[in-house]
Amino acid sequence: MKVLVFGATGTIGRAVVRALGGQHTVIPVGHSSGDQRVDLADADTIAEIYASAGRVDAVVSAAGQAAFRPLAELSDEDFVLSLSNKLMGQVNLVPLGIPHLTDGGSFTLTSGTLAQNPMIGGAAISLVNAGLEGFVRAAAIELPRGLRVNAVSPGWVRETLEKLGQHPDNGTPAAIVAQAYVRAIEGGMTGQVLNP
Amino acid sequence: MKVLVFGATGTIGRAVVRALGGQHTVIPVGHSSGDQRVDLADADTIAEIYASAGRVDAVVSAAGQAAFRPLAELSDEDFVLSLSNKLMGQVNLVPLGIPHLTDGGSFTLTSGTLAQNPMIGGAAISLVNAGLEGFVRAAAIELPRGLRVNAVSPGWVRETLEKLGQHPDNGTPAAIVAQAYVRAIEGGMTGQVLNP
Repeated sequence: MKVLVFGATGTIGRAVVRALGGQHTVIPVGHSSGDQRVDLADADTIAEIYASAGRVDAVVSAAGQAAFRPLAELSDEDFVLSLSNKLMGQVNLVPLGIPHLTDGGSFTLTSGTLAQNPMIGGAAISLVNAGLEGFVRAAAIELPRGLRVNAVSPGWVRETLEKLGQHPDNGTPAAIVAQAYVRAIEGGMTGQVLNP
Repeated sequence: MKVLVFGATGTIGRAVVRALGGQHTVIPVGHSSGDQRVDLADADTIAEIYASAGRVDAVVSAAGQAAFRPLAELSDEDFVLSLSNKLMGQVNLVPLGIPHLTDGGSFTLTSGTLAQNPMIGGAAISLVNAGLEGFVRAAAIELPRGLRVNAVSPGWVRETLEKLGQHPDNGTPAAIVAQAYVRAIEGGMTGQVLNP
């Protein structure tokens, strides 16, 4: 399969590219590095990526920014960033991508455990992740031509915890998280939230 | 208790006002009718309502617009309306309302069954409702002074189905739905989604 991966230069994205690499042809798209770059908050850049990629069999997004900040400090700008980037940026990948996907192709987006399991500072991210999962459940029943859409909801990733100087054993290795994306692409499910 | 009800002139809002009326003092706020009016998408009008209401013990929102339209026809404007009105309008009630609530007071917002149970045409509403529930779960753990926040997730309301010319027995009477708001106000729960 030919798989377009948004967020290919992030911790999870790199692991997804690695996991897919043996079996599939990957087109990596980054945000701040790489040959092809996208600004998820700018639908025009998404459309450009799709146009240059040609027909693909699967679209993965492991991309999107959202504000981590205590409720009392969350500003309008924090919500605008979170809603326009991680939420609507990933949502827009779906309608914009439909004409570029082969029949039966799939979208796999990224939510996160805060959708269901809140933590201090995570209110905007909980909103974004849960909203994305609601969209995935709903969009799944309207997609044409057997297209599918799912979300992977990662918990803390081991490599991310290491970078933050926290105990890595509290996280799941990115390579394990990546397998959830592979299952979503190669499996037949739609409208599902996969927990790695 | 003194209860500020946003969306007091809608089908559910009127039933909530009626259910609270015997036991509590209700301050009704409408969108397009009534003495006090709010535009949920305009945080300034929310702040004005709070300032004029003085201290309250509970805030209810049965308000908010979102676009019902097939996925293939959902426009940027549909998402902007849905996100700015039913989603962020209700979210903003919380941080803006905190200083006006008495200790232990509560916010009760309105999501809806499409959060979990999608239907054709409901993708934007599913996103909004699920996002709102994610926010409620997360905001609950950060509210100060014993303040609480919950969401009521109504299914179809009998009176709404009647207006739409559909079989009313497929809906729950607004008076029954209203009891979920009463439970959220009078009970001790927080971070919960109540299904009437």
